Amino acid sequence: MASVEELTQRLRTFADERDWGQFHTPKNLVMAAAGEMGELVAEFQWLTPEQSAAVMEDPEAGGRVRAELGDVVIYLTRLADVLGVDLVQAALDKLEHSAKRYPVESSRGSAAKAPHDQPPAP
Amino acid sequence: MASVEELTQRLRTFADERDWGQFHTPKNLVMAAAGEMGELVAEFQWLTPEQSAAVMEDPEAGGRVRAELGDVVIYLTRLADVLGVDLVQAALDKLEHSAKRYPVESSRGSAAKAPHDQPPAP
Amino acid sequence: MASVEELTQRLRTFADERDWGQFHTPKNLVMAAAGEMGELVAEFQWLTPEQSAAVMEDPEAGGRVRAELGDVVIYLTRLADVLGVDLVQAALDKLEHSAKRYPVESSRGSAAKAPHDQPPAP
Amino acid sequence: MASVEELTQRLRTFADERDWGQFHTPKNLVMAAAGEMGELVAEFQWLTPEQSAAVMEDPEAGGRVRAELGDVVIYLTRLADVLGVDLVQAALDKLEHSAKRYPVESSRGSAAKAPHDQPPAP
Repeated sequence: MASVEELTQRLRTFADERDWGQFHTPKNLVMAAAGEMGELVAEFQWLTPEQSAAVMEDPEAGGRVRAELGDVVIYLTRLADVLGVDLVQAALDKLEHSAKRYPVESSRGSAAKAPHDQPPAP
Repeated sequence: MASVEELTQRLRTFADERDWGQFHTPKNLVMAAAGEMGELVAEFQWLTPEQSAAVMEDPEAGGRVRAELGDVVIYLTRLADVLGVDLVQAALDKLEHSAKRYPVESSRGSAAKAPHDQPPAP
Repeated sequence: MASVEELTQRLRTFADERDWGQFHTPKNLVMAAAGEMGELVAEFQWLTPEQSAAVMEDPEAGGRVRAELGDVVIYLTRLADVLGVDLVQAALDKLEHSAKRYPVESSRGSAAKAPHDQPPAP
Repeated sequence: MASVEELTQRLRTFADERDWGQFHTPKNLVMAAAGEMGELVAEFQWLTPEQSAAVMEDPEAGGRVRAELGDVVIYLTRLADVLGVDLVQAALDKLEHSAKRYPVESSRGSAAKAPHDQPPAP
């Protein structure tokens, strides 16, 4: 399985070869990531929750979803590289924080009981 | 360095323990990822490009940026797991596609020459 | 009913009084609008479609949704003012374009028949 | 100048004629609005703040920006109609709230003095 480190390195080379580092400020990259996230959201906008769960069974829609996911990851990874952040470790640290905020016992199935409440995370 | 596989597994356990799988349809998860992306964007909205490049030097703002990056990655990773997509491979495949679309020679520094053109990717 | 013109004028005064015009470049304002849009999306992320249709019946959640809608409109209106775009006319023009692209007869109920197709607009 | 009320009515007719009301749950509409917002952000992602301020001078880029603004407003207006929210009044109410939170005297030019602070609003 390919690693984030390999992807990071390849993106760096890609940008260097094209002299695109000049455009890759964190401000620009976060905008690019947000733009791609918008395209990913659009793939799901008219689907019911049930249809969304089956989207990969449709080769065309599934291919678009996979490509949009790839685009978001590309810009996020590039952003993290420019900022000097370890993306996976940042997620693991946040998860540990969430584990304390939402103890197993008191959180079980809770969004179902209080659907309009502040959204649970993750 | 922690891997995406480890993060994927931990997120699966986290959701299972809390019986949150019922809320984790792709439609819901892509919305959660987009919501967190919005918070990430907000961290950079009033910064100049130069200030954005130095954001990690400020412990408070840098900490917020890292935490928001973690949140986005959490939901993206969970979404990819539910969809059965290999996130890093999807990015590598898209990068290969972009390498063909933007050959090194003709793309060098191109956004500078045509700033209002369709944005180069990545 | 209050008009977009009145809102535009009030936002202009608000920014002028605080000398915030210096931060209100289109690039910054579109980021601010995107950030607020993320918060609006987050209000709906764990709701079923049915729950989302009843969200205003809950005073707390409904109040949050209304406030987030207000935030998005504030930044969009300010952005349009800075760009010199008439927001409502831009929407009406786009709607006219969509009316031609999606003729009534051939579009009726079509997303139901082809749920994974390119999303209809609007 | 066209009004939000006129736009609201036209969008309602547009959806009714095509029997698209079935897809227009708040959850779906907020996703559509977020997707269009992503496209709007993408128009600005590689521009410097200065270039972003001049974007309407370029007929092609300016036309795209205007069209994307129109798309965002279309879905926001439709969402507000379905929710029963007066979009402009929601913004005016939020602005009043912000006026109290950011008094003129203490807020003047403040983002410049504390660029990494919590972003001022609006």
